[in-house]
Amino acid sequence: MKIAVDAMGGDNAPQAIVEGVMLAKQDFPDIEFQLYGKEAEIKKYITDEKNITIIHTDEKIASDDEPVKAIRRKKTASMVLAAQAVKNGEADAIFSAGNTGALLAAGLFIVGRIKNVERPGLMSTLPVMGEPDKGFDMLDLGANADNKPEHLVQYAVLGSFYAEKVRNVQNPRVGLLNNGTEETKGSELTKKAFELLAADETINFVGNVEARELLNGVADVVVTDGFTGNAVLKSIEGTAMNMMSLLKTAILSEGVKGKMGALLLKNALHGMKDEMDYSKHGGAVLFGLKAPVIKTHGATGPDAVRYTIRQIHTMLETQVVPQLVEYYEGKAE
Amino acid sequence: MKIAVDAMGGDNAPQAIVEGVMLAKQDFPDIEFQLYGKEAEIKKYITDEKNITIIHTDEKIASDDEPVKAIRRKKTASMVLAAQAVKNGEADAIFSAGNTGALLAAGLFIVGRIKNVERPGLMSTLPVMGEPDKGFDMLDLGANADNKPEHLVQYAVLGSFYAEKVRNVQNPRVGLLNNGTEETKGSELTKKAFELLAADETINFVGNVEARELLNGVADVVVTDGFTGNAVLKSIEGTAMNMMSLLKTAILSEGVKGKMGALLLKNALHGMKDEMDYSKHGGAVLFGLKAPVIKTHGATGPDAVRYTIRQIHTMLETQVVPQLVEYYEGKAE
Repeated sequence: MKIAVDAMGGDNAPQAIVEGVMLAKQDFPDIEFQLYGKEAEIKKYITDEKNITIIHTDEKIASDDEPVKAIRRKKTASMVLAAQAVKNGEADAIFSAGNTGALLAAGLFIVGRIKNVERPGLMSTLPVMGEPDKGFDMLDLGANADNKPEHLVQYAVLGSFYAEKVRNVQNPRVGLLNNGTEETKGSELTKKAFELLAADETINFVGNVEARELLNGVADVVVTDGFTGNAVLKSIEGTAMNMMSLLKTAILSEGVKGKMGALLLKNALHGMKDEMDYSKHGGAVLFGLKAPVIKTHGATGPDAVRYTIRQIHTMLETQVVPQLVEYYEGKAE
Repeated sequence: MKIAVDAMGGDNAPQAIVEGVMLAKQDFPDIEFQLYGKEAEIKKYITDEKNITIIHTDEKIASDDEPVKAIRRKKTASMVLAAQAVKNGEADAIFSAGNTGALLAAGLFIVGRIKNVERPGLMSTLPVMGEPDKGFDMLDLGANADNKPEHLVQYAVLGSFYAEKVRNVQNPRVGLLNNGTEETKGSELTKKAFELLAADETINFVGNVEARELLNGVADVVVTDGFTGNAVLKSIEGTAMNMMSLLKTAILSEGVKGKMGALLLKNALHGMKDEMDYSKHGGAVLFGLKAPVIKTHGATGPDAVRYTIRQIHTMLETQVVPQLVEYYEGKAE
């Protein structure tokens, strides 16, 4: 399998990206990597050239570039060339830690939607607290700002495919994020989506779930509109980051006592941070496209790159995308 | 000033409610309390009868009653009688820790909206991390499931009045919760709301704010639709609760070492919990009604009741509601 890597995307590129690829190469000798970016820079971090091809380009998309414009105008940017490679069948998937909006645009306009999937959704596997091996797939996390009820049903199908094929969850439970668990609760959007989800026999719909319960593993797949999904994800991340930093400040303010306490609780504190870190599940997938298009955090390090390559490897190995294509081709327009 | 108290609302009623009232009585000898509920039960916890009137009723609204039906059918429920007292001018404000939906319905249908306020919003003062004395007012937290752009402008005005008059914040900064800070970001709703907020010269609009930054104090007032507000609040609460419980489990799993570490970090851990606890700012206000209608958590204890009474006292003292009435009466319908 061939993965097109935007080696220039992210705060620590190309170093973190290339180092991550070197780690992933050890795990998966069956992957051929195409690294798009500045050859001289990339070469610095290559420790083993086997299965590595560098496609040199000087152009790259900056984190503050306007996404759609950037994709259209910077025709030789590393991200654009990587997406083109997927479109042309020269690569099977694309990976980037760069400008999220630009990658979404590259995914939609270059790689392209699966026929009959109206609005691909941005999906991540988020953590279930106290159960490090578990997680839940949530979408849309912000690929779209406005969604129709029908889109949420597509997200349910997409998320169920992912949970079952890629994460190996049998008969994944699908929850609808709502402002109460009762059937009658919700906005116009979620009330209508509830009806459609309940009527769809291809998914295992378990009803409404509330944001407060998400991290407790109430569902294997959680669907919501992109605006709410984005706000919920950022609320979870913001709260977790704030609490970790509150704790750090509080410990430091306790002087020697704090240092000793922190030393004794080192494993416990580390475990807590670890539980919140969901990068082990991989990056965010723009799901519903003709090939895996994966984004990791811009501040990503080599380990997160490695986990994301593992995720892409599983997506390609399980053929989740071709199976989705087949499912949706059987559907009427 | 007279406060109508639904003594039967909440998981620990009437004990926690009456005990809280007893505490608040010491702070504010100028408040006359009307306690609605089972006289015999209430009397058990009354330690000083001065400024206390009990209005006996056997009926109460349960936490799982359907809100609007309950308000209409249980005409002598403690919550309904308390709301009626406000409507009839016998009390100046109502306080309950009971069924949230029912209190919202009682507020809207019995106490009534301020003229020209289309959709009252549920508002809480949420914590700013690292600055225990600060907070930000966020609304709508779920009184409405669907909002129009114009409602968000009303929330901005309501929140600004509250921040300025009740919390004593000069020229409060209003932020619009959005999926990016750039002006062009957002859903149809937030894009239109952005335009309207930017054009309103009576408020100090500072632009879009993201959910990740909320707890860092990026604005004094944050406006959003009720569906998103509800999801964001529950995400913050759920994440905070989960992290505290993760930490507890992790500490316990470390045995003696964990116990010693926790002992040394007692202040630090307590401080962290304290920072996340925003009950010191009071309860949630259904704001935009003709009188203060305040809700605290069902699991509330006497301290939270005391803080909420203090909040109501400030609302009445500063006459924030009459000032809002005056502001909105000057507006065209």
